[in-house]
Amino acid sequence: MNATTQRRALILFAHGARLASWAAPFERLTEITQARLPDCEVTLAFLELMEPRLPAVVDGLVERGVLDVTVVPVFLGQGGHLLRDLPLLAEGLRAAHPQLTLNVAGAVGEDPDVLAAMSDYCLKAIGAPG
Amino acid sequence: MNATTQRRALILFAHGARLASWAAPFERLTEITQARLPDCEVTLAFLELMEPRLPAVVDGLVERGVLDVTVVPVFLGQGGHLLRDLPLLAEGLRAAHPQLTLNVAGAVGEDPDVLAAMSDYCLKAIGAPG
Repeated sequence: MNATTQRRALILFAHGARLASWAAPFERLTEITQARLPDCEVTLAFLELMEPRLPAVVDGLVERGVLDVTVVPVFLGQGGHLLRDLPLLAEGLRAAHPQLTLNVAGAVGEDPDVLAAMSDYCLKAIGAPG
Repeated sequence: MNATTQRRALILFAHGARLASWAAPFERLTEITQARLPDCEVTLAFLELMEPRLPAVVDGLVERGVLDVTVVPVFLGQGGHLLRDLPLLAEGLRAAHPQLTLNVAGAVGEDPDVLAAMSDYCLKAIGAPG
């Protein structure tokens, strides 16, 4: 780990839900991704209903000197949460931390390779050859 | 298309949202999957906020003689919608249509290959080599 890479973090941003079981795939995604990015802190943050929330996670990173943060929305569709709520959260965080570079990626569900993997799963679900 | 295969349908079951833009990846997933399954009707249905809803889609299929239906929940996490709402919907549909075989798959977000594709996307998002 060098001075450049240890200052980066990746936040997987998920909606949150009332049932704890809901978070399982997001936690696995965080673990899988952290294992592939040993020089980058990979952490999960929620919009609502679950903790930790995005602002608290970003505040904590900045306090520890992590000033290059990428947020990947682990959402399938881009509705009000990604088109309104997340930009407002990002704007507030950038205003609170002028030294922070906060990149926000598109939703995972918009990625063609993610869609292809979901389609493969659909074929498996009805027993069709891939 | 033969008599056996034309009686099957695959329903991609999504949450629904207020903004029409939200549905785009689900519509693309439906198109991609339909192209790979020419002998099976592939259709999208929603839990709430968007149309058509799951019961109306299943009722329509059964009316047209499609009696083998698989539902794939295009959800990432398994919360109350998949652990409570969907089983209740499925129970009601099976009671209304005793001749129907209704299979309900696990959520796409629980599939290891879908998680791997989402992790690949995260690496792309921060510019890391895959």
